[in-house]
Amino acid sequence: MPIYTCTTAQGALTADAKRALATEITRIHAEINHVPPAYVHVVFSEPPQDSVYVPGEPGAPLLIGGWVRRRHPQEEAARLALELSAAAARVTGIPEQRILVVIQDGPARSAVEGGHVLPEPGQEKEWLSRHGA
Amino acid sequence: MPIYTCTTAQGALTADAKRALATEITRIHAEINHVPPAYVHVVFSEPPQDSVYVPGEPGAPLLIGGWVRRRHPQEEAARLALELSAAAARVTGIPEQRILVVIQDGPARSAVEGGHVLPEPGQEKEWLSRHGA
Amino acid sequence: MPIYTCTTAQGALTADAKRALATEITRIHAEINHVPPAYVHVVFSEPPQDSVYVPGEPGAPLLIGGWVRRRHPQEEAARLALELSAAAARVTGIPEQRILVVIQDGPARSAVEGGHVLPEPGQEKEWLSRHGA
Repeated sequence: MPIYTCTTAQGALTADAKRALATEITRIHAEINHVPPAYVHVVFSEPPQDSVYVPGEPGAPLLIGGWVRRRHPQEEAARLALELSAAAARVTGIPEQRILVVIQDGPARSAVEGGHVLPEPGQEKEWLSRHGA
Repeated sequence: MPIYTCTTAQGALTADAKRALATEITRIHAEINHVPPAYVHVVFSEPPQDSVYVPGEPGAPLLIGGWVRRRHPQEEAARLALELSAAAARVTGIPEQRILVVIQDGPARSAVEGGHVLPEPGQEKEWLSRHGA
Repeated sequence: MPIYTCTTAQGALTADAKRALATEITRIHAEINHVPPAYVHVVFSEPPQDSVYVPGEPGAPLLIGGWVRRRHPQEEAARLALELSAAAARVTGIPEQRILVVIQDGPARSAVEGGHVLPEPGQEKEWLSRHGA
């Protein structure tokens, strides 16, 4: 259900670090937002070093953007972002000072997976029993 | 006005499949959201295979993310996502089980095309007659 | 705090144009949204020419997508988008007719930078004095 996109300049993350980060994002999201790991998508975007600027100069941030269904409790959204930031620093070695995590939400009813409109937060169980893999 | 980004691992889509998918997304969006095809943008993002994880392992999903103006009727957003998912499966051969479509909305007044703030849904005709190409 | 992603087909922007555009986006955002330049992230995404379609044909738009904290005054969001569009045309030479700027907002409380949840709009000063670099 969720999609996470991790953006860094090319070469900032090893293949092992990418895999470890994907594993951590999947684990944390599944736990906090009650979604089976099989539904957590993580994509890495690694443009050349002259394509990432902060502030106005080539830089080396790690940007983690997530899309989640709207109406998860607000405290959980903050906890999700905080845990992702801490985990990303831990598994990549990039200092948290250079990590920005943004969780964006959108209506579940505007999203479709496996041919079915996604469930509202809290209605995952019924949806999974009807449509799950 | 809308922007669609289609993300798959490199090699998952042929050039023909990309073109066919762009054509279908354009047709479906134009029809449901009353926007001339000339305003529908479709971008493909194809990171290497070790950059797409689900769940925590390299995977091969097709992720279609769209940005549309807020306040289209909610039933139409669900219909849009469902039709895009079915069309994507049909033209790419990727099973719908591996396709995730997310329509994200945002305020029309925070978007500018051709130098002009975008119209609210329902006010396209007047905007196009004043600012259209 | 904000993240801007500029998408064009490969070769549409020179290295100088990218740097100039990053500089302008940073300057304009910092001024209108009261954020120090050090917190403005700009990323370029440049897929091959057969990966950008409008409408349904390979095209050459410049798409600028921004994520900002929700609850900035609405008039400022329009002004921000209009100024970014004009500046992008000026520094890249791409006609404004082919430029689309979309500012998407999300809750500050769902975003974390440097290990801290971001401040609501208007509370930047206190946040920066406690958590700033």
